[in-house]
Amino acid sequence: MKIASVVEQIQIKKSFLCIGLDTDKDKIPSHLLSEEDPIFAFNKQIIDATQHLAIAIKINTAFYEAYGVQGWVSLEKTIRYIKEHYPDIFTIADAKRGDIGNTSLRYAKAFYEALPFDSITVAPYMGEDSVAPFLSVEDKHTILLALTSNKGAFDFQTQKIAGKELYKTVIETASSWEHSDRMMYVVGATKAAFLSEIRSVIPDSFLLVPGVGAQGGSLEEVYRYGSNDRVGLLVNSSRGIIYASDQKDFASAALDVAQKIQNQMAKLLTC
Amino acid sequence: MKIASVVEQIQIKKSFLCIGLDTDKDKIPSHLLSEEDPIFAFNKQIIDATQHLAIAIKINTAFYEAYGVQGWVSLEKTIRYIKEHYPDIFTIADAKRGDIGNTSLRYAKAFYEALPFDSITVAPYMGEDSVAPFLSVEDKHTILLALTSNKGAFDFQTQKIAGKELYKTVIETASSWEHSDRMMYVVGATKAAFLSEIRSVIPDSFLLVPGVGAQGGSLEEVYRYGSNDRVGLLVNSSRGIIYASDQKDFASAALDVAQKIQNQMAKLLTC
Repeated sequence: MKIASVVEQIQIKKSFLCIGLDTDKDKIPSHLLSEEDPIFAFNKQIIDATQHLAIAIKINTAFYEAYGVQGWVSLEKTIRYIKEHYPDIFTIADAKRGDIGNTSLRYAKAFYEALPFDSITVAPYMGEDSVAPFLSVEDKHTILLALTSNKGAFDFQTQKIAGKELYKTVIETASSWEHSDRMMYVVGATKAAFLSEIRSVIPDSFLLVPGVGAQGGSLEEVYRYGSNDRVGLLVNSSRGIIYASDQKDFASAALDVAQKIQNQMAKLLTC
Repeated sequence: MKIASVVEQIQIKKSFLCIGLDTDKDKIPSHLLSEEDPIFAFNKQIIDATQHLAIAIKINTAFYEAYGVQGWVSLEKTIRYIKEHYPDIFTIADAKRGDIGNTSLRYAKAFYEALPFDSITVAPYMGEDSVAPFLSVEDKHTILLALTSNKGAFDFQTQKIAGKELYKTVIETASSWEHSDRMMYVVGATKAAFLSEIRSVIPDSFLLVPGVGAQGGSLEEVYRYGSNDRVGLLVNSSRGIIYASDQKDFASAALDVAQKIQNQMAKLLTC
């Protein structure tokens, strides 16, 4: 998918919402557990109910891998369902991959070919040649971890290298790599104050912002400090939407929460 | 598996060899492609031929994920086969995972429960709470990326934070975390000169050393600078062993290469 299509969808839907499918059998409504594939059954209903409000859908691979082969089956069914029925939605494999070039090439094949995702989250620790195989694919997008929303972000990411925080060094360095126009960055919403500084380094890139909702970030702050002239934000909510109810009304409850967030977003977009 | 068992196996087998199953359908002998599961058929023969020389087997998950669901099936069959037939072999999921705590918990479930690995490689970028869920499991081992064998290692890992390289900061910080006695570290063999410095920080930990062979590192140097009083090394070779021949004799060719490496290791161990 081209970035221009994402920007167009943001304008059409008046939304920059990303819905995260962190689907966990212990949290989905119990009546779904008798389905042949409870995880896919859950995802399908969530997607159908909220697709008109979502610019992006992010699938957190860990939740699927935890169920072994069957989890990978549910993952594949989910991404294929989205691509078939809602091809305008930007899909994200939240997989935090990254390895030596020869191996990253296989991960790119896994998430860009075997599974038809538009993008994947990637860890920066192993440097340029570990990211290059993801960046080399046209119309696919690499979402590099920059500053994450968890407490551990302060262990290394905010440590200073020659007077500059590691996450800034990562962003500056990565933004000079070949095909960096296909790069997006993960910036946690709990660190909204950092966003204006990040924008001074990468004014044009899209940012994937987790941490609004369950993790405590503020949407207004993220928009104020993080948006650019084409919005440039995908703000993710996972648990707050998909687990809004654990009863049979879970899909309409998810819709209600997503609608509230989209209303807020529409207001911010027209300010 | 307990570390004491790994140390005991090193003494029994006079080896500290880890064999990496980076299994690629484009590289395995063509006669296997007619098998129902060519990747598992290849792995099984490699494992059977070399198991008496290997202390550890490392499965590079990227190569399996590249084949989608069927790849995950081959991965599961391979790890179960090793556990059933060769329970003394230390198994490594070379998966380079790591995410916020809630998600890392799922990855730990994926590789310690759904798949019965003894250990998993983990990226440090997201800090302590991203690694803690892996460390919290008894008799399982977290292998943290410290200094990798690729060119990109110089992008961030060797950059200095307050006068100290990032990889050293990672090792020092991580070695203070709870249950760090369950931690091992990835240190690329192409950086053997760095090993003695690393040993001054973590004298007792095991190091997983990729990069001997295809990536150009020297076994003697790794042993000289990296070993400790219980050896403390798992030296990996992947392509050099498993692709020693692309003909029907591939398993015996793999055995020959593994035997040569083990002979070298036995010599080093008795020096």
